[in-house]
Amino acid sequence: MFQPRSIAIIGASKKPGKIGHDILKNLIDYGYSGRIYPVNPNIDEIYGLKSYPSILSIPDEVDVAIIAIPAEKVLSVAEECGIKGVKILVVITSGFSEVGNVDAEANLVKIAKKYGMRILGPNIFGYVYTPSKLNATFGPREVLGGNIAFITQSGALGIALMGWTIMEEIGLSSIVSLGNMSDIDMIELSEYFAEDPNTKVIAMYLEGLKPGSGKDFVERMRRVVLKKTVIVIKAGRSERGALAVASHTGSLAGSDMLYDVAFKQAGVIRAYGIEELFDYSRAFATQPLPQGEETIIITNGGGAGVMATDAAEENGIKLLNPSDSLREAFRKTMPWFGSSKNPIDLTGQAVVENYVEALEIAYESPEVKNIILLYCRTSVLDPLELAKAIVDVKNRYRDVSKPILVSMIGGIDVKEASKYLNRNNIPTYPIPERAVKSLAKLIEYYRFLKKHKLESLTRVA
Amino acid sequence: MFQPRSIAIIGASKKPGKIGHDILKNLIDYGYSGRIYPVNPNIDEIYGLKSYPSILSIPDEVDVAIIAIPAEKVLSVAEECGIKGVKILVVITSGFSEVGNVDAEANLVKIAKKYGMRILGPNIFGYVYTPSKLNATFGPREVLGGNIAFITQSGALGIALMGWTIMEEIGLSSIVSLGNMSDIDMIELSEYFAEDPNTKVIAMYLEGLKPGSGKDFVERMRRVVLKKTVIVIKAGRSERGALAVASHTGSLAGSDMLYDVAFKQAGVIRAYGIEELFDYSRAFATQPLPQGEETIIITNGGGAGVMATDAAEENGIKLLNPSDSLREAFRKTMPWFGSSKNPIDLTGQAVVENYVEALEIAYESPEVKNIILLYCRTSVLDPLELAKAIVDVKNRYRDVSKPILVSMIGGIDVKEASKYLNRNNIPTYPIPERAVKSLAKLIEYYRFLKKHKLESLTRVA
Repeated sequence: MFQPRSIAIIGASKKPGKIGHDILKNLIDYGYSGRIYPVNPNIDEIYGLKSYPSILSIPDEVDVAIIAIPAEKVLSVAEECGIKGVKILVVITSGFSEVGNVDAEANLVKIAKKYGMRILGPNIFGYVYTPSKLNATFGPREVLGGNIAFITQSGALGIALMGWTIMEEIGLSSIVSLGNMSDIDMIELSEYFAEDPNTKVIAMYLEGLKPGSGKDFVERMRRVVLKKTVIVIKAGRSERGALAVASHTGSLAGSDMLYDVAFKQAGVIRAYGIEELFDYSRAFATQPLPQGEETIIITNGGGAGVMATDAAEENGIKLLNPSDSLREAFRKTMPWFGSSKNPIDLTGQAVVENYVEALEIAYESPEVKNIILLYCRTSVLDPLELAKAIVDVKNRYRDVSKPILVSMIGGIDVKEASKYLNRNNIPTYPIPERAVKSLAKLIEYYRFLKKHKLESLTRVA
Repeated sequence: MFQPRSIAIIGASKKPGKIGHDILKNLIDYGYSGRIYPVNPNIDEIYGLKSYPSILSIPDEVDVAIIAIPAEKVLSVAEECGIKGVKILVVITSGFSEVGNVDAEANLVKIAKKYGMRILGPNIFGYVYTPSKLNATFGPREVLGGNIAFITQSGALGIALMGWTIMEEIGLSSIVSLGNMSDIDMIELSEYFAEDPNTKVIAMYLEGLKPGSGKDFVERMRRVVLKKTVIVIKAGRSERGALAVASHTGSLAGSDMLYDVAFKQAGVIRAYGIEELFDYSRAFATQPLPQGEETIIITNGGGAGVMATDAAEENGIKLLNPSDSLREAFRKTMPWFGSSKNPIDLTGQAVVENYVEALEIAYESPEVKNIILLYCRTSVLDPLELAKAIVDVKNRYRDVSKPILVSMIGGIDVKEASKYLNRNNIPTYPIPERAVKSLAKLIEYYRFLKKHKLESLTRVA
């Protein structure tokens, strides 16, 4: 599915705006290097590719068949795909169980089983795998490469978020639209990404599991979590939200408390909104795992330091009480009215050198396990200059397994500097709270791994 | 202070980067139309303005004196200001009580009292009042006009947020840096803004009240709140955060529970982060007050609708159960597989006309008191086209007191459309949760007013 040698698009079209056109165009333009076979009996060629009247007339093996034709024709085409020896059916078409058409979907699954095919969908917008330069969606084209795999159970929201990740420069290894999950589900996909060297983080928008798969979810996802971080938004948390899920996808959202327990047991990180999902993903995608709890906050603004401190306490982060010698070291890089208690307040007079020295001290000190760096725009310190210096220090300490998360507060030049940091793998947020919450999740994961990796070792012994 | 006829800048300088330069330059370039008097014995003129050796040599009355000279010279200059008949001392200079120099500050207050002057500061970055085109800060220049007054007890954070409001296109009537609050405090400023026709919302970053002023805060702020919305971030909520406040400003943060009670009694809306502060401010600055609780969510993406529903329930918003006739009306503007339960799901096939019709129905229906409109980027509906249509409908129903808050999810074109909506006074957020939380605060304020305005009426009777 993710590295196919050939893809057929059944329902390929010449007409922009048609799903069968847009997917084909994305496939071609995004740079997929395998063989592409448009299938449409009414067309001879599209974009220089020969079009075939049916999948059976393609003189080659077909690994993946993308189906974008009306629902009533899907079953017979699936049958043909089976005869042809297709391995994966990607059924874009909607109008199945999500609108009550349960029988048609069951028959689709039956046909697939008969021929040993697997199904993604139906009722999806497609999928992306950036390492294969494969964009088989009718969403935005220029998905950025990276190591976050995004799995979504919602279509419109998923497509909208594709555009959002491009704007926010969030790099993805994959995007998968789950739709009705008639066959392939989020658990199996997660197991795939757990072994995928191109994926470090699995981010998921979830509305509900397949009925009865709760226990399966916990057991199998826990094994995934021991290899890769999994972050999930579970929508339909509230009673009314669960009803909305039912009317949206026909699936049962289930009790949120049960989900919460399941996530905790499996070690899945929970996000409560879209912003959190990608904030956390960005942190996990770029930062090493913490080697301990003790965290230091370095700032040039007292107020920003206080807000970060509040957020740290509220999110269960243990702030370091620096030893006298460590305080003495920090004190050398700040004016006399600065603070060497944690938060380390370099004051509004801080220039690049002060930040660099404070950062070096933090990286060198074995007391410090995690770093939050805050910057308020001041006239004495250019944000881009600071950003470059931070990247430089970070690179010098690349062998030190100490997460660093940054928040830069200010206007347009601060935003540019933040982008520079993000591009250089230092997760940077526009407000301190978001940096702190993201670090809290890194630490939560650290605790889970510490507990469960030890447990499994014990069991083996 | 906010509409002075003349301002002296004591410590005016020709050197960019110096505070005495930057404030003067901001004053001139931002367009202040009163008279400006630079004071510096070593200079003859700056930017075409005659410079005076001392405030006493200015041949005119001086309403406001901005003091940007070393701390040790402030007292004698304050004395001169008193003799001159200055009304307001704006003391930028730091090095007073915030670093333990309590006596100097007490003496400053004594001098001011003797001459009937009021003091803003010391230890501040200045203040802005956009209706007077007055920017007396060393922060960013191009503050956007609007009806939010922003009062901040933190300097570096305050300056950084000035830049942030410019980037985010948040319009302000005023920015006031409080510093050590030796005299003028947030309560008195709030009382001023309560009567200010240019201010609709008072947004505040607070670290602590003056000792013993808690009761005063509740009583006087409640009167303010009955006229204008007050939104506060109280930093130093956590134990450790309170310690950080102490080491930052020397003031006591006090028990957060007490603050929480005080805010509730006064009807002050509480924000827990910078993003929330301005999200809420934007909603209050542009929207009419709710006339009831019942809220409807209109969406083209089921997932976005579910997330908004969760957020609504979690934030105490009562979602409307539409009557059969209302459901029937909505049903006419969606395909058969849409949903006319609340959330109203127009489906991913929705075009501008569907949204316009649904909005008109919502504005017309007396069942609906508040509107949340969600849009996920789809290929069939251009976001800017939708934004323009929303503004158009909104303007047609400008006499209907029904708040509308929007969330648009997607990439760069969605961001542009969101800006268009914000510029046209429709608060628009990049994720549904932020729109919903902001509406929850509008409703919270509605409840407070309903209760307390009735109470005060009863009392009068």
